[in-house]
Amino acid sequence: MHAGRILAGLAFATLFLIGTAGGVSAQDYTRKQWWPSEWGPDDQLGALNRLTPAKVLEASRLIRTGTIYDMTFVYEESMPLFSLTPFRRKYTLLVPGGPTYGATGENKLFWNEDYISGHITQDGTQFDALCHMGTEHGKAGDTNEQRYYNGLWQGQIGDGRGCRKLGVENVTPIFTRGILIDVAGYKGRMLERSEEISVDDLKAALAKQGLSEADIHPGDALFYHTGWSRLWKTDNERFNSGIPGLSPSAGDWVIAKKVLLVGTDNWGVEAIPGPDPKLFAPNHQKFLVENGIYIMENLDFARLLEAKVYEFAFVFGAVPFKGATGSPGRPFAIR
Amino acid sequence: MHAGRILAGLAFATLFLIGTAGGVSAQDYTRKQWWPSEWGPDDQLGALNRLTPAKVLEASRLIRTGTIYDMTFVYEESMPLFSLTPFRRKYTLLVPGGPTYGATGENKLFWNEDYISGHITQDGTQFDALCHMGTEHGKAGDTNEQRYYNGLWQGQIGDGRGCRKLGVENVTPIFTRGILIDVAGYKGRMLERSEEISVDDLKAALAKQGLSEADIHPGDALFYHTGWSRLWKTDNERFNSGIPGLSPSAGDWVIAKKVLLVGTDNWGVEAIPGPDPKLFAPNHQKFLVENGIYIMENLDFARLLEAKVYEFAFVFGAVPFKGATGSPGRPFAIR
Amino acid sequence: MHAGRILAGLAFATLFLIGTAGGVSAQDYTRKQWWPSEWGPDDQLGALNRLTPAKVLEASRLIRTGTIYDMTFVYEESMPLFSLTPFRRKYTLLVPGGPTYGATGENKLFWNEDYISGHITQDGTQFDALCHMGTEHGKAGDTNEQRYYNGLWQGQIGDGRGCRKLGVENVTPIFTRGILIDVAGYKGRMLERSEEISVDDLKAALAKQGLSEADIHPGDALFYHTGWSRLWKTDNERFNSGIPGLSPSAGDWVIAKKVLLVGTDNWGVEAIPGPDPKLFAPNHQKFLVENGIYIMENLDFARLLEAKVYEFAFVFGAVPFKGATGSPGRPFAIR
Amino acid sequence: MHAGRILAGLAFATLFLIGTAGGVSAQDYTRKQWWPSEWGPDDQLGALNRLTPAKVLEASRLIRTGTIYDMTFVYEESMPLFSLTPFRRKYTLLVPGGPTYGATGENKLFWNEDYISGHITQDGTQFDALCHMGTEHGKAGDTNEQRYYNGLWQGQIGDGRGCRKLGVENVTPIFTRGILIDVAGYKGRMLERSEEISVDDLKAALAKQGLSEADIHPGDALFYHTGWSRLWKTDNERFNSGIPGLSPSAGDWVIAKKVLLVGTDNWGVEAIPGPDPKLFAPNHQKFLVENGIYIMENLDFARLLEAKVYEFAFVFGAVPFKGATGSPGRPFAIR
Repeated sequence: MHAGRILAGLAFATLFLIGTAGGVSAQDYTRKQWWPSEWGPDDQLGALNRLTPAKVLEASRLIRTGTIYDMTFVYEESMPLFSLTPFRRKYTLLVPGGPTYGATGENKLFWNEDYISGHITQDGTQFDALCHMGTEHGKAGDTNEQRYYNGLWQGQIGDGRGCRKLGVENVTPIFTRGILIDVAGYKGRMLERSEEISVDDLKAALAKQGLSEADIHPGDALFYHTGWSRLWKTDNERFNSGIPGLSPSAGDWVIAKKVLLVGTDNWGVEAIPGPDPKLFAPNHQKFLVENGIYIMENLDFARLLEAKVYEFAFVFGAVPFKGATGSPGRPFAIR
Repeated sequence: MHAGRILAGLAFATLFLIGTAGGVSAQDYTRKQWWPSEWGPDDQLGALNRLTPAKVLEASRLIRTGTIYDMTFVYEESMPLFSLTPFRRKYTLLVPGGPTYGATGENKLFWNEDYISGHITQDGTQFDALCHMGTEHGKAGDTNEQRYYNGLWQGQIGDGRGCRKLGVENVTPIFTRGILIDVAGYKGRMLERSEEISVDDLKAALAKQGLSEADIHPGDALFYHTGWSRLWKTDNERFNSGIPGLSPSAGDWVIAKKVLLVGTDNWGVEAIPGPDPKLFAPNHQKFLVENGIYIMENLDFARLLEAKVYEFAFVFGAVPFKGATGSPGRPFAIR
Repeated sequence: MHAGRILAGLAFATLFLIGTAGGVSAQDYTRKQWWPSEWGPDDQLGALNRLTPAKVLEASRLIRTGTIYDMTFVYEESMPLFSLTPFRRKYTLLVPGGPTYGATGENKLFWNEDYISGHITQDGTQFDALCHMGTEHGKAGDTNEQRYYNGLWQGQIGDGRGCRKLGVENVTPIFTRGILIDVAGYKGRMLERSEEISVDDLKAALAKQGLSEADIHPGDALFYHTGWSRLWKTDNERFNSGIPGLSPSAGDWVIAKKVLLVGTDNWGVEAIPGPDPKLFAPNHQKFLVENGIYIMENLDFARLLEAKVYEFAFVFGAVPFKGATGSPGRPFAIR
Repeated sequence: MHAGRILAGLAFATLFLIGTAGGVSAQDYTRKQWWPSEWGPDDQLGALNRLTPAKVLEASRLIRTGTIYDMTFVYEESMPLFSLTPFRRKYTLLVPGGPTYGATGENKLFWNEDYISGHITQDGTQFDALCHMGTEHGKAGDTNEQRYYNGLWQGQIGDGRGCRKLGVENVTPIFTRGILIDVAGYKGRMLERSEEISVDDLKAALAKQGLSEADIHPGDALFYHTGWSRLWKTDNERFNSGIPGLSPSAGDWVIAKKVLLVGTDNWGVEAIPGPDPKLFAPNHQKFLVENGIYIMENLDFARLLEAKVYEFAFVFGAVPFKGATGSPGRPFAIR
């Protein structure tokens, strides 16, 4: 992280800890320019540039027992469907009650097909592509100043048929080292709505697992457990009402670790609502928009936690829907 | 059953077991009982039972260079959408041309969401779950005699909201040894519509790659390349019109190898239309319905073939849509 | 209505008023045979046979001031979406935030298109086609004994691509005499959940409007106002929780009037939950399945009531979606 | 029509008849200002302002025999789905093959529901709302200069959840006088792709029907028959490839008649491709954007033509999908 980024990080932390009293306004923050990316002005890969063959080999060496740990919640109509926006998300799966087609041939083969509709790239266990978010720097609605990763503006992205750039089809298959920080385990409880996780929390949780911050390597998939997923399907309304998450300074600390992605067991990577009512989802912004670090949400850590597996080969293949803002999928760990 | 049928039945029976020795007709074939499965009467996993920790370790040992080979076609409106059935499949991805929501906060974060609809579990690069197919053994439409893997009947499966059993959510994450047989490479050409691949073809193609049938191990993901995918997006109509594929005896040979799944670069695992007009998709039937062996279709082998990689760690996580008949996804290989 | 039907109606009323004590069980009720229809064994039109040219002329003569009264609620995501079934209904309308296509030509014409998905034939202001419902007379799931209007069985109707018979495309455009009975106005209050409207209530409400039962003519569209629509968008949960409606004997009384359709301002034509817990939606059954009388739900009577218009030309064109179980639309009245 | 409008009409006609030689460029045309509307700067109703009670009464007096003439094609997967744009339209109707829900109660009532998705407001027999189209007057993509009816700009209209203004929910129910001009009947043949219908053609076709231009009254629904609908479902590809339609001067003539809507038996109200390659769909622009005159497409005139009914009460209720760009429906005529 170069000087400008450190300063920005400091300014941001200041903003959060002491409010706007320190003279750095949120508006200033939105005006800084974060591009070109460290991988050049044409890059669309972001932190996936860190997934080198050496990194793949590092991950493969973690496979010692041959055990697979699923990290995915089943997609079903009864899962929490995000409801904070007026554009309420939906999920529908239809299979005819009788065979869709057939029986055909003398072997009398028949078959079923299904039809799915919904916001399936942004609900359930999911992955955010870089076109998912941007920030607006001009007057409201001025597309020229709506900016994405690497400084791309709305006119380069927007299209009713999928994002023209930074869509999830650019995301390569992921096989990397995964590390899970059990913050809820360290705290001995599910974290609360709006509760922030500090850098010290992360360090202490790592220590409890016999690890230190040096065990977070560049290119890692970094996961943290808040316990919030205990509400999955048991209290969807509360699950949707807000979340605990990384403080902005913890977000900066993660960025400095040069990870590939950050994943958690709820639907954001910061506390929502956050302590500063003027900022919305600041880590989403810093990860996706400014640093090209991917985000995974609504992960199921139950199997890893039960087995006390905190370091593993992490596997994920984003479904390459052309132009999509994210992907559902089947993340899993191997040990 | 008239003579022609008996002859066809003979051919088919011969083909199969050499087996039930004399005069077994196709109709008889549909009457044979294939359940309970070798993994017991309650099993829903099928050949995934072969994915043991030892198998995972065998796969991991194939990772030597850290190179990832994507095996997935991008999902897009211009891909071939299967059109053989009256229930024509569709695929739609919508992203608003302007930001979906925001800008929010003083950091002016905005975001995009998308909406997908279509037969996405059965088009593009996809995986078949065990509830995808069955055979009918009674009079037309008699649900009591519509049978699936492990003898389950329609009343246990059918539901307008997804299959109650054998749905893709039962499919565990896959990390196993993969082996690719380049039949088109051996033949020096794209195979033709309706062309059958014999056991000898498979053996010869393996030999050309410096392998033998002993190199197919139980629990492997077995892939074969027909070249038909050259038509993907270049001639969708021809791509959909039919396919080359394994002869029924080659299908039996594959079953005897006790593989986990069979995958190819088109939309079936047999020649369609096949040489026997009275049988429809016989390998689909034998693999999915009778033996619990999974099928993957529309795979992209280009990267593996270019690198001459025929043996690799194969990775796939079926998206666990509850009750779905299959899954899109992101299969890939690691070497 | 022939003698058998009258007897059945009496039996049914008895059943309701004195419980099962009288020896007529609900099960017997489901065993009676209501076909062939009074319009012959091949009829798919049902009570629309009553819409003769003379009936159209009768309706046109009611147009005296040239005033149009809309009877339709706007379709929007915030309307009550029926939630009593596990197959929760949905409604989505998407229009790109920027123009969908263009600008084209030197005249720089651009345009917007939208995409709709959902259970739009069965939510909002809607019309039920005759394939919407049936009754089961054999063992559970036995399709041979699942019966619809005119005795059609499931095998003649069911198809994953729309009902093969009795679909809404058979419904002709409707222009007939409409009559509105303001039961809530007569009671001076919104009716309660599960509250039944008796024949006496209907007669008294008609009398308050200066009408008598003789003013209900064969072929009329008969509407009754319960006040329940006051909950539309103000308390969707309560709106969905149950409804007031016609008692079964009031249902029989309506059938005897030989009306074309029955419409109301909530989502059923009987009290739900009803006083007899063993029966579900008995008027739906008698109207649609046994007598071919159509049903309209979630109508907005506000404009008619405000103008005290109880007799009018009623207009409705069901959208002829082939094979659909119903239709959204734009019912309206002219006076 | 005030002076400015007449001048604009003249300029436009000139452009068409004598090409660009006269010094009036297409670009100039796009710069003229057509707002505020003749119904004031806040109007969203457009030509529906002409549907007065007197007009309703005029229509009702045309009902003399009580005969209803359906004007709607059945909506089905095999109908022509518009394919000129990359955003290819789709239509799907799904009904489970077995009952969706039930059997419930001792009366064993079961029911079917369906699920529809697609561009159903813009395919099949359909009606265009005023937010369907606009013209761009600034540089490409500059939303400030994307203008709609009454001068509304994109920022006032655009929203991923439906148009904020000019959506079809503003369209009131329609019961007006309808008049059908059988141009194909006059020509004795189906018109050709790109063939323009002149004012003289319209007058001659009217004369053949025993009518004159004085028989077109303000507030009428004006229909013209091109015969192109003969291709509906018989040659969808040709149906979609282009259309015959009104010349721009015929468009101006129609506007001067102060009609409420213009409808035809294909998917546009001008010849496409038109004789001037620089202009796209000029009558769409003049009708919808500049004059608030509605458009109906893909109408079925077969029943009216067979009965030689050219003057009738015309009935249409646009389905009030909030924010939609148009509506499917069930237009019909009564005589």
